[in-house]
Amino acid sequence: MTYFQQHQSDFLEGLKTFLRIPSISTLSEHKPDIRRAAEFARDELLHAGMTSAELIEGNGNPLVYAEWLAAPGKPTVLFYGHYDVQPADPLDEWKSPPFEPTVRGNDIFARGAVDDKGQVYLQIKAVESLLKTTGKLPVNVKFLLEGEEETGGEHIEEYVKTRPPRLKADAAVVCDTEMFAPELPTICVGLRGMVYAELFVEGASHDLHSGVYGGAAPNPIQAIAEILCALKDREGHLLIPGFYDRVVPPSQKERAAWATLPFDEKEYTEKEMGARALVGEPEIPLFERTWARPTLEVHGIRGGFTGEGAKTVIPARAVAKISTRLVADQRPDEAIQQLRAAVSAACPNGVTAELKVLHTGAPSLTNPDNPFIHAAAAAMKEIFGKETVYIRSGGSIPIVGVFDQYLGIPSVMMGFGLPDDNLHAPNEKFHLPNFYRGIEAVARYLEILGE
Amino acid sequence: MTYFQQHQSDFLEGLKTFLRIPSISTLSEHKPDIRRAAEFARDELLHAGMTSAELIEGNGNPLVYAEWLAAPGKPTVLFYGHYDVQPADPLDEWKSPPFEPTVRGNDIFARGAVDDKGQVYLQIKAVESLLKTTGKLPVNVKFLLEGEEETGGEHIEEYVKTRPPRLKADAAVVCDTEMFAPELPTICVGLRGMVYAELFVEGASHDLHSGVYGGAAPNPIQAIAEILCALKDREGHLLIPGFYDRVVPPSQKERAAWATLPFDEKEYTEKEMGARALVGEPEIPLFERTWARPTLEVHGIRGGFTGEGAKTVIPARAVAKISTRLVADQRPDEAIQQLRAAVSAACPNGVTAELKVLHTGAPSLTNPDNPFIHAAAAAMKEIFGKETVYIRSGGSIPIVGVFDQYLGIPSVMMGFGLPDDNLHAPNEKFHLPNFYRGIEAVARYLEILGE
Repeated sequence: MTYFQQHQSDFLEGLKTFLRIPSISTLSEHKPDIRRAAEFARDELLHAGMTSAELIEGNGNPLVYAEWLAAPGKPTVLFYGHYDVQPADPLDEWKSPPFEPTVRGNDIFARGAVDDKGQVYLQIKAVESLLKTTGKLPVNVKFLLEGEEETGGEHIEEYVKTRPPRLKADAAVVCDTEMFAPELPTICVGLRGMVYAELFVEGASHDLHSGVYGGAAPNPIQAIAEILCALKDREGHLLIPGFYDRVVPPSQKERAAWATLPFDEKEYTEKEMGARALVGEPEIPLFERTWARPTLEVHGIRGGFTGEGAKTVIPARAVAKISTRLVADQRPDEAIQQLRAAVSAACPNGVTAELKVLHTGAPSLTNPDNPFIHAAAAAMKEIFGKETVYIRSGGSIPIVGVFDQYLGIPSVMMGFGLPDDNLHAPNEKFHLPNFYRGIEAVARYLEILGE
Repeated sequence: MTYFQQHQSDFLEGLKTFLRIPSISTLSEHKPDIRRAAEFARDELLHAGMTSAELIEGNGNPLVYAEWLAAPGKPTVLFYGHYDVQPADPLDEWKSPPFEPTVRGNDIFARGAVDDKGQVYLQIKAVESLLKTTGKLPVNVKFLLEGEEETGGEHIEEYVKTRPPRLKADAAVVCDTEMFAPELPTICVGLRGMVYAELFVEGASHDLHSGVYGGAAPNPIQAIAEILCALKDREGHLLIPGFYDRVVPPSQKERAAWATLPFDEKEYTEKEMGARALVGEPEIPLFERTWARPTLEVHGIRGGFTGEGAKTVIPARAVAKISTRLVADQRPDEAIQQLRAAVSAACPNGVTAELKVLHTGAPSLTNPDNPFIHAAAAAMKEIFGKETVYIRSGGSIPIVGVFDQYLGIPSVMMGFGLPDDNLHAPNEKFHLPNFYRGIEAVARYLEILGE
């Protein structure tokens, strides 16, 4: 019986403890929970047998750093993950409370289950399993965990950009992505970047009666509608001038590989998304739309009277949260300029529109032909018993681009989430067999790297 | 010294008491306040010397009915008003609390000050002044006050449509409009109707991650934007097929009279509205845009994540409150059909759009050549010392159309509000000189009618 098998229930209990901490980085009232989550991760790293583990304090939420460097001549791997989570609303759509982790069937349900606490925890438990059974690790290992991934990861970026000597490594391992399908080991080689912003629109200085002033007064909500429609057409094409200029289309080889991925469009649409139809640029295949094309979404909007019943008001102001996803070789700074120019051009008469950028991240695209990715593919194939596939993700993990640019290291994105894990949504879950196999796969990865 | 002069401070104190009752009909938690306001009005009518006053209970908020019928052979006038008020939000924009009436300068500030408690109260005080000084009224007088005007007035309409014998009258007097300018006595002869609705849009069954699904998932907020832009172009023209077919343009005489009204567009735009520019159909003059053209406004919108910071969610649903104002000879039922058809045609792929109509009201247009209106114009001219002008209003008072259709009586709209009274907005006020002159003008009106 292996260490993994012996300690499954310990691993699950530890994960539950981690998940009970509502470390929502977007909401300032959760600052104490952020600290508790960071301290929990640090303590687990020490318990695992890492030589040292500490909080790096600075601007923003603390980073967690740990190291074990007793494998001279062997490569050094830097594990990355984040201990913060998304907000849990809408709360009434959760079947069990978001911060009371609940096992139903083979899944554990909680905010952060898969994004990213479950995947951070499996990295730690992989290292623990090796250290507890062999007393050492096959390669040198460092951990760098952050608590601001869900709010843009500004401060870890500031830190990494100073190129601190302790972060020197040969590759980063990022467990924050998902498998393409259940039982299908997957490595992600491309991520979208993003620009997240708030669009503030103001009309009159005060709310106005729509009977008296309707036909004369500017309406900020209508203005937001007009701006949104000027940024994206009804088919999903972005109308922001210049936005597609730097977009690198996927290679024929990549497109061909994507076309062979096992995929049931009906199940994806109806079961996974719960939608009536897929939308987006009709002439572009689905995976290319979500992985290799820039998109624009409005995430929330607020304005005027939204209470019960009727109020005939023309509101003075409204605000929308919007973001664009970027793909290689788009640049966030240039995208911001293009977006600002498009908003400005689309702003109707009588209102002002101001775009306040909250955070940005560059897209990234990794060449899969390197030994750190090959080893990961081999480890996952061994544990899952199937050939590992290479995909991209439509999501954004800005740190991957920062590791590349400032530390000069590739990121190996071994993800153990599943497509129906509801990340960022109610009833987020982690498939427990993937949690356990993730621990084994990461441990096996370190062994292969050490050979 | 007249009764009016002797009792100014009593009138003001009584008005304050009325205004302190937060009788917001849109919010169900204010049901007890609605009842208190109705009882207050009933008691004031009894105190004024009306022969009887009572609450008419039925579905919805009580009606207040009172009568004094001791002038045989004289005409009967039915006073109408409403004791309910709009919600007070946004609360932080009020300079004094909305339900703590506060006199600053010559104005009294409170929710309902001018719309419509102040104008209901001046009707009652006019009758009281005559009864207390002469022991009788020059004509027969009835009152019918409602408590649902701000939510559509459904139940008073139901009641009036049964043509109850006690409502038999020769004309209605409606004090719920405004003067065109300070010191300019004004009678309103046209009102816009309306259709108020909620637009519910649903996409996927649950919120989705905009990285993973952006480019594939329908976005209900974007869909609302697309629907709004399909209903109205950037210049304010409605794009709802058939919507303008029944619109009766104002006569040349009316247009010519409107063109001579004293009006400072810059002051209207910048001071009264606090806006940067006027908007709306550019080829239509302003008064025609707001008084004689249908318009569409969005009053509020809610969807997705609107808290602090960033959440990268594609929301499952969103809702907007919208209304159209209708003008003669548009018909609410037909307008609803046209609106539904336009929403349905504009609804993008992948979402459902459902329009839930909250209330409707027909537009009205009164021929000013009748003795009840002539008497009102003469009374206002006497008290204000200026020739009375005839205008229309862009607002909606659906009961006017119902009185016309079911009781066969014209409505005399003597209004004492001012254009900067902020009705339906923060810092609603009533100009106290107009409150006092309103009392005198209504009393004088009854005297002229009795001659």
